Amino acid sequence: MGTDYGMRIAALAAYASPQVVTNDEIAERLRQAMVQLDDRLKRERGVGLSEDEQRRFMTNARWIQKNIGFTERRFCQPGQGTIDLAIEASRLLINQTGIPPSSIGAILFGTVTSSYLYSPPDAALLQAALGIPAWNGPFPRETFGADVSLACSTWGTALRIAYNFMHEVEHVLVIGADAMSAAISWHDRAFACVLGNAGTATLCSRVPLEEDWFGPERFFSWLDGSRAEVISTPVGGSKRPLTSYQELDTYQHRLRMDGARVRQDMVPFISGPGIDAVLAKTRLNLADIDHLVLHEANGVLNRDIVRNWEQRGFRGTALNAGGRFGNTTSASIPLALALNPDALGIGKTIALVAFGGGYSMNTAIATIKHPFPVWANV
Amino acid sequence: MGTDYGMRIAALAAYASPQVVTNDEIAERLRQAMVQLDDRLKRERGVGLSEDEQRRFMTNARWIQKNIGFTERRFCQPGQGTIDLAIEASRLLINQTGIPPSSIGAILFGTVTSSYLYSPPDAALLQAALGIPAWNGPFPRETFGADVSLACSTWGTALRIAYNFMHEVEHVLVIGADAMSAAISWHDRAFACVLGNAGTATLCSRVPLEEDWFGPERFFSWLDGSRAEVISTPVGGSKRPLTSYQELDTYQHRLRMDGARVRQDMVPFISGPGIDAVLAKTRLNLADIDHLVLHEANGVLNRDIVRNWEQRGFRGTALNAGGRFGNTTSASIPLALALNPDALGIGKTIALVAFGGGYSMNTAIATIKHPFPVWANV
Repeated sequence: MGTDYGMRIAALAAYASPQVVTNDEIAERLRQAMVQLDDRLKRERGVGLSEDEQRRFMTNARWIQKNIGFTERRFCQPGQGTIDLAIEASRLLINQTGIPPSSIGAILFGTVTSSYLYSPPDAALLQAALGIPAWNGPFPRETFGADVSLACSTWGTALRIAYNFMHEVEHVLVIGADAMSAAISWHDRAFACVLGNAGTATLCSRVPLEEDWFGPERFFSWLDGSRAEVISTPVGGSKRPLTSYQELDTYQHRLRMDGARVRQDMVPFISGPGIDAVLAKTRLNLADIDHLVLHEANGVLNRDIVRNWEQRGFRGTALNAGGRFGNTTSASIPLALALNPDALGIGKTIALVAFGGGYSMNTAIATIKHPFPVWANV
Repeated sequence: MGTDYGMRIAALAAYASPQVVTNDEIAERLRQAMVQLDDRLKRERGVGLSEDEQRRFMTNARWIQKNIGFTERRFCQPGQGTIDLAIEASRLLINQTGIPPSSIGAILFGTVTSSYLYSPPDAALLQAALGIPAWNGPFPRETFGADVSLACSTWGTALRIAYNFMHEVEHVLVIGADAMSAAISWHDRAFACVLGNAGTATLCSRVPLEEDWFGPERFFSWLDGSRAEVISTPVGGSKRPLTSYQELDTYQHRLRMDGARVRQDMVPFISGPGIDAVLAKTRLNLADIDHLVLHEANGVLNRDIVRNWEQRGFRGTALNAGGRFGNTTSASIPLALALNPDALGIGKTIALVAFGGGYSMNTAIATIKHPFPVWANV
């Protein structure tokens, strides 16, 4: 294999479901789940939830806004899933750019909430939905596809794979989409206050090496599975398949998080060694970064990271979705880009920092060298 | 990005659980599930299963061997999942080769049966289990990781991504592992007769371009999501989350297949245009292929493909796992390689053909240019 190409982001589109869900609605839904469970326990064992157990359900709009930094999020309609968010974002991208679907050579579908377990893969569903041809007369038409996942670092992971396909494929469609509502436990405020749904489609296109927005040294990836239990789903994977009513009733198949621990581990890591590693690799300083886009894990956690950066010499701006979409996992970074078109001028250097479950991190630093059109339906 | 490297498979190890499950045991387990369901329906609605409904459960060892071509398979112990299979295979690889874990720069974890839903990712779990360092003194140590999935074409997908990382990383660990027992519906013989568990670890290493076993033209990828329903899981993904006892009781969250349709579509495709596409790209003929390794979807289906190839000029041998491990999805191709060490001589050209759900296909053609050591625990 021999390559002398670079990559630009030719265009980016984001889609969020129309249905806005406020903090009040989340708090109320948790309260209803608590009442239901309490009633059932009283019926079944004569004793309801303890005060400690009740606390896991109790929150309110002010607390969420103050401590999580989110005011609202979007949820899909019933019957919709990740693929529907990805299709909407991709169609927006295709309609706005006019790029023919047949010019897309690879689909990297980044998601942690696959539309279907095991099969079919979302990449194949998207190929068909967008009309990317499977045939060229009697010959199979080549499209590379992969569903890619690395918890909250998924989008950065897919972007780095896209970069490494530029010598083979002129246009890679990178999807970052998650219907995180499907992963919420309504017996635990930790993630229920946080998660939201969105889909994004990013067109990554080949450019001559001298026009490269990136460079192999502009990516840094990290894994630390020694703390995997901090963000983890007890039941429903192959390690412990879902088999009982009790597991289903208690949302054992939904995502759990030790939020305090995430904050305690991730704020110092991303403020310090996590970003230093990529800066050292790229030979850049914090002062060289015009914009920072952190995976929007939690608005308050992210604010702390940005403050630490500022104390260490960061003079740029943090781009985000303003707490109005929640933590959309694989969609969060491109969604923040789509909502801040005015910041994306030629010459700007942007740090794209995906981090989270695993633990894991995938950072990329882009310098914009061509017009960077973005669209959002919201 | 600029690269002038090739890739070889430096070593490969496969692990299958000790617990052998015979065709008789599968038939008996289906029969028991049928009796249970029949009893429950009689109790609940006064009428048991119809004859037609009963047929979906009924099979026997002879039928499975004759029509599927499998004699037995392996299942994990309870509490084990995909990660455990991957760890065992990786440890076998590391112990036999003596490669230090710290020299592994990327983990591409190919699986459709993630150990955990949503988080943690298997790539992070494996990094920690193998002792691939997360730190280098006070600095984060770089490891790229991704969980990669494309139904039965997963391993070929991960291998192609590995190839494109050779300019950045000297050693990529490609995992193909699946605990497919976790995906079985015991209310449907179609997949229950077929699926098995295995883990494999393939060390892909950088070589000078003239020693490349592959070449960008040696890979061909294909997606056709227009027939996604043929191999599909009704419930449990984000499109339709699992919420009811009824869905759980009837295994709606387990994999389904229209086996006759798969055969009808895939035999002519892989016998004809599917392989012609990669041969045209590589400028090779069927007569140039020494060994064919088909994803072991179904022994009889694969035999039909090989016969069609032979009629079209294929003079080599088909390598497989002999029907003793079932369809192990992401593990099937490397497992077949691990079980046929004598075939892997220098100079041999091998077609590695992954195909299945989506539909999807990922084919690679390798010419062995260095010693190719393989190990299996079975």
